[in-house]
Amino acid sequence: MKLLDLYAKLKGDLNYIEQELEKAVSVEHRLLSETSLHLLKAGGKRLRPVMILLAGKFGNYELDVLKNIAVPLELIHMASLVHDDVIDDAMLRRGQPTVKAKWDNRIAMYTGDYIHGKALTIATKLENPLIHQVLAKAIVQMCIGEMEQIRDFFNVDQTIRNYLLRIRRKTALLIAVSCQLGALAADCSPRVINALYSYGYNVGMAFQVRDDLLDLYGTEKQIGKPPGSDLRQGNITLPVIIALQDPQVRTNLLSELAHIRTQKDADSKQAVALVKASNGGKFAEQLADRYIAKALHAITVLPNISEKKNLIDIAHFAGKRSF
Amino acid sequence: MKLLDLYAKLKGDLNYIEQELEKAVSVEHRLLSETSLHLLKAGGKRLRPVMILLAGKFGNYELDVLKNIAVPLELIHMASLVHDDVIDDAMLRRGQPTVKAKWDNRIAMYTGDYIHGKALTIATKLENPLIHQVLAKAIVQMCIGEMEQIRDFFNVDQTIRNYLLRIRRKTALLIAVSCQLGALAADCSPRVINALYSYGYNVGMAFQVRDDLLDLYGTEKQIGKPPGSDLRQGNITLPVIIALQDPQVRTNLLSELAHIRTQKDADSKQAVALVKASNGGKFAEQLADRYIAKALHAITVLPNISEKKNLIDIAHFAGKRSF
Repeated sequence: MKLLDLYAKLKGDLNYIEQELEKAVSVEHRLLSETSLHLLKAGGKRLRPVMILLAGKFGNYELDVLKNIAVPLELIHMASLVHDDVIDDAMLRRGQPTVKAKWDNRIAMYTGDYIHGKALTIATKLENPLIHQVLAKAIVQMCIGEMEQIRDFFNVDQTIRNYLLRIRRKTALLIAVSCQLGALAADCSPRVINALYSYGYNVGMAFQVRDDLLDLYGTEKQIGKPPGSDLRQGNITLPVIIALQDPQVRTNLLSELAHIRTQKDADSKQAVALVKASNGGKFAEQLADRYIAKALHAITVLPNISEKKNLIDIAHFAGKRSF
Repeated sequence: MKLLDLYAKLKGDLNYIEQELEKAVSVEHRLLSETSLHLLKAGGKRLRPVMILLAGKFGNYELDVLKNIAVPLELIHMASLVHDDVIDDAMLRRGQPTVKAKWDNRIAMYTGDYIHGKALTIATKLENPLIHQVLAKAIVQMCIGEMEQIRDFFNVDQTIRNYLLRIRRKTALLIAVSCQLGALAADCSPRVINALYSYGYNVGMAFQVRDDLLDLYGTEKQIGKPPGSDLRQGNITLPVIIALQDPQVRTNLLSELAHIRTQKDADSKQAVALVKASNGGKFAEQLADRYIAKALHAITVLPNISEKKNLIDIAHFAGKRSF
């Protein structure tokens, strides 16, 4: 319930961000507005805007400044989701048909490019060059992360380190940067900015580890798409890497993965069951807990305002997403 | 020969830009470096860097400042080409296999995203917020232009106005912005900046009209891909719009276009011949000439330094691309 309290508290400001998000994408071109609004209306936790607003509370909180970070970062995240869906050949996201399913791959590609461009247009309202530098670097790292994911599809010999570097780029950096830029735009001290960056980074890592767990352990209702999707597309996540190290499981799991790779429309139920029979879930869960502990440690230096408690609640939420 | 003189004159500085382009994309990730360098090595006229350097000569020419515009703008152009090739299902560009042909669509999509991100990283070295605002808006317009192109595929009822708006966004704006930002970064007066913007815009329009003519009238050797490619993918360009207005041609051309649309791998030879039998080529040629005249008129206000002559040569080149 704590998270609901947080959303209730930020409700006015988040509604404003939501309006600005809609405004950002709903002009100029009918088809692009339609595809972009379709994405926007499918919802989402708006985790990045929430982080930015909370970070801003540790300095001079000005919504009209912070929106110029919050809207672009949510749009950059959305743009990466549309391109992901093209790559993953995904038909559903958050229980809704994806842009590539409802329109097509070409339209999804340009919808992503367009939303990305709109994000930049809004970010350029901020004059601090450091903000743009941080943002541009994060975007490059996200692309590299996505590319690494493609390269590592069905790579059964990848290491835990490969996986961690990949999710760092793919997910954790943008959340870290959300906290950092929110604090930066609110003129926080370097000490506060660094603490919030580190918090965001560790929450982001935990969040992605949990997300990958959820794909194996969640129900279709919980995750808005059929479970086992990662395995079907060859995305080898942490529990699978650990399962592959288990001599009792490895041989069968390898043959299931080879089957999925070669047979179009093969299902991943058997592979999921094998991973569940291994120590992989437990290991990933413990790792997520360690990231949460680090996130909580990072913010001990922050002043004890009520938003510090909200950050703690978010960390616990990211660490305990149910499965 | 005049253009060769220009390239000879700028050779040292263009080589430096070329090195910076390579440096920009050849780090961090092997596959992304490979795909990006493949694109870079396939060559190109480097029209945008040339425009930027020439524009800079009308103010305080500092190569180390101008490179931070020239490299990003060429990279943004390259990124849009990779995404184009995905959409167009193109196998060849400049006589070389495209990224999507040599690797695949997914890799081409992220190569585009990555190059785009790298472009931003470099542009953020410039602190003038106006530069970023102009750039971000141009990027959005380019995406809209690409989307309009998809929407208008096989739309046989589109108007000349549709076509002109589309190529304005797709091509002319980025060339206009190259001139504008080169002048802006060199601290030129608003009068000079506006003249160069208008020059770039009109040259860009002429350039794209000629490019579309070349696709119909050029040889495979000249254009680096089979002629008639636009028609095969349903891209209705100006000569085709004009041909469709000719009652002598319309019926046959419509049935050829319907054939191309429905028959996979249909060739466009017959459709090309029909367009050539119409007034479309002549009309487009005359329109290109008018844009060139406007471009030349725009720069009459510029001081008579040798680079003004170079701009005139480029305009004539853009207006007379052989076919």
